[in-house]
Amino acid sequence: MRVELITTGNELLIGHTINTNAAWIGEQLFSLGVSLQRHVTAPDGEVLKSVFAESLERSDCVIITGGLGPTSDDLTRDYVAELLGLEMIQDEQAMRSLEAFFAKRNREMPVDNYKQTLCPVGAEIMENHMGTAPGLWFPEVITGKYNCSIVLLPGPPMELKPLFTQEVMPKLKSRLIDSEKTHYQELRFIDVGESDFHQVLDEKFASINNLEVGYCARLAELDLRLLGSQEAIFQAAKLAKTAFASYYLSDTKQSIEALVIECATKAGQTISVAESCTGGLISHRLTNIAGASAVIKQNWVTYCNQAKQDSLGVSATSLDCHGAVSEQVAQEMAMGALTKAGASYGIGVTGIAGPDGGTEDKPVGLAYIGLATKNEDGNIVSSVTKVYSPRNRQSFKQVVSQKALFALYKAII
Amino acid sequence: MRVELITTGNELLIGHTINTNAAWIGEQLFSLGVSLQRHVTAPDGEVLKSVFAESLERSDCVIITGGLGPTSDDLTRDYVAELLGLEMIQDEQAMRSLEAFFAKRNREMPVDNYKQTLCPVGAEIMENHMGTAPGLWFPEVITGKYNCSIVLLPGPPMELKPLFTQEVMPKLKSRLIDSEKTHYQELRFIDVGESDFHQVLDEKFASINNLEVGYCARLAELDLRLLGSQEAIFQAAKLAKTAFASYYLSDTKQSIEALVIECATKAGQTISVAESCTGGLISHRLTNIAGASAVIKQNWVTYCNQAKQDSLGVSATSLDCHGAVSEQVAQEMAMGALTKAGASYGIGVTGIAGPDGGTEDKPVGLAYIGLATKNEDGNIVSSVTKVYSPRNRQSFKQVVSQKALFALYKAII
Repeated sequence: MRVELITTGNELLIGHTINTNAAWIGEQLFSLGVSLQRHVTAPDGEVLKSVFAESLERSDCVIITGGLGPTSDDLTRDYVAELLGLEMIQDEQAMRSLEAFFAKRNREMPVDNYKQTLCPVGAEIMENHMGTAPGLWFPEVITGKYNCSIVLLPGPPMELKPLFTQEVMPKLKSRLIDSEKTHYQELRFIDVGESDFHQVLDEKFASINNLEVGYCARLAELDLRLLGSQEAIFQAAKLAKTAFASYYLSDTKQSIEALVIECATKAGQTISVAESCTGGLISHRLTNIAGASAVIKQNWVTYCNQAKQDSLGVSATSLDCHGAVSEQVAQEMAMGALTKAGASYGIGVTGIAGPDGGTEDKPVGLAYIGLATKNEDGNIVSSVTKVYSPRNRQSFKQVVSQKALFALYKAII
Repeated sequence: MRVELITTGNELLIGHTINTNAAWIGEQLFSLGVSLQRHVTAPDGEVLKSVFAESLERSDCVIITGGLGPTSDDLTRDYVAELLGLEMIQDEQAMRSLEAFFAKRNREMPVDNYKQTLCPVGAEIMENHMGTAPGLWFPEVITGKYNCSIVLLPGPPMELKPLFTQEVMPKLKSRLIDSEKTHYQELRFIDVGESDFHQVLDEKFASINNLEVGYCARLAELDLRLLGSQEAIFQAAKLAKTAFASYYLSDTKQSIEALVIECATKAGQTISVAESCTGGLISHRLTNIAGASAVIKQNWVTYCNQAKQDSLGVSATSLDCHGAVSEQVAQEMAMGALTKAGASYGIGVTGIAGPDGGTEDKPVGLAYIGLATKNEDGNIVSSVTKVYSPRNRQSFKQVVSQKALFALYKAII
């Protein structure tokens, strides 16, 4: 199936808005085994008609986003109807939905919005629960010489995503011919690179029939995307999980911090974090998750030595003999967080984020991650991991937080 | 000047990579008074030839990114040379640069990379200091019937951005005809919306000749973009800064956190932050800035009441009588941070991030921001700001952190 995407709007062309919809839609389609053939961004205005016509001629399905609003420059609906020679009629269901939308918000419906209830004859309205612009689906049969289905979607991601997932994906799935039908699975790994996978698994993956492999790499995080028959995916997932067992996180697309909070909540465990070089990022990530307050009672950002001593009880001797960035201090910070907060797990992180402050012995990019908990006898047990990841300041913080959260996750599960 | 952008690479079409280059390039061009006419993303392969030809026919300048690497699917250079009928020759300067690039990293240069020193006759090599793929500039005169300048750039933002700023922008500027030549200024405002500007300033802006106005809105942050004659920009900036004086941040494109750290460093002031609902985000943002360790000694994330009492000395009475989310507790948290860390400024933030935990009196989205410092007599003075911003958890945290940092910035300058 040849699919093209057209995103409309001047704001995308003058750097006002980063186009995140395009990558998201590309990913959704890929999960159906379909690769976008082309993506065009064009400004509002008459030029859209030729942009639409060009894509329709090349495709089996064209997805168009934006230009469905109530204002005078929102003309996507009209241009498509004009290209296809379809009359516009008022849709009763769309009218009722729109009136309900405004009623629910205790607002009177502006006259301009009635435009959004117009629907080209033969097209299907897809109700938008998050905004006023309904989506539209044009089946092939009403597109004449183009013989190409057309999807119109509102631009805001909050409105586009649910419409795409709930309405468009099932329609596309049903249109895929049998040979294209595929299963899809994503596996997330932490702290391992795409090249490691290539080296170890390329040959093995190549020997599996009906399998397509993709990767999405972020800082210290890698998603393996498997596409193919159920059997092929099962085999490939098993290979990957075996070869990179200690890096495997999950197949749920959840972030580490979400998994940490979920597991800790289920187990009735609490966590306390003492951060130096990550400066609050680990705490920020954990508290992004709803329900974090059941797990997190108190965290510290102890940037200076005095704070490490005063708040966490790190010993002056350790600081003097080994320095603030050392295995000993990371360990004492973790133990301090554990005991001072009375938590089930304590994390202590110290390192050199740079750009200044590095030495030959302790270069920028060095960090230690301490983890402390109590064993069955109530005694504190701890471990420290050394990290060396010289990067810019923000990437360094992200990588170290990633490693700390992964260590924590493995300790909790 | 009609400019189009073509970004190449399958990774952009299957959701592997969000295309941030496109918005960035659009913004750069807009600062020259040029709006991108179209942006096309196409997959690697033969199809690129027709995509290139179509854009060349419509444009005065086409910018193409990606496909300049050393591997067999990196064919941008070859396709463009083929379209223009230009022979490829080895460029001595490119060769020396590439050899130096590998020598500096103590690595032998792989044979495949020699491909990257090939240059179509008449094109100009733009040296890439961040990677192995040089950029290429094709002046109009060598593009035959297209009469269109062409820019080839590597895809990675880290390599593309310096090349674009240092090499491409001056070339484009010199090509703008006089009537297009414009000045550009950005002003950043905090905690005010685009619609407020429209309401107050649209008419006034409209009365200024030679002025184009753009906005870029983020959460609790708005960039006003002014384009036009020097005189027009001066007038418009004055109007905006006067009308929204209390929301104005700066014209330097710096983040609030960068300005806070810069001002505090210059003034020899230190800051301590006690966070509840923002969960470490304010601390994270401040410590993203290089040099933060001179300003930040110690921060706290006191999520539970006990921690607020133990670490910050918030009184049990205040917690009992007014609740953790109250003016009193925000104030005491700020004063606690100030005194416990011995800082020049203390910030205390408490609120309800949701989705649960709200009541009728204290709904999700409510927060109090306390700010404490010492006056000339050494007495603590403090103030508290009430915030109500019901949003999803992460947006709420961002908005509250934004307001807290802005309050801090205004106190320090």
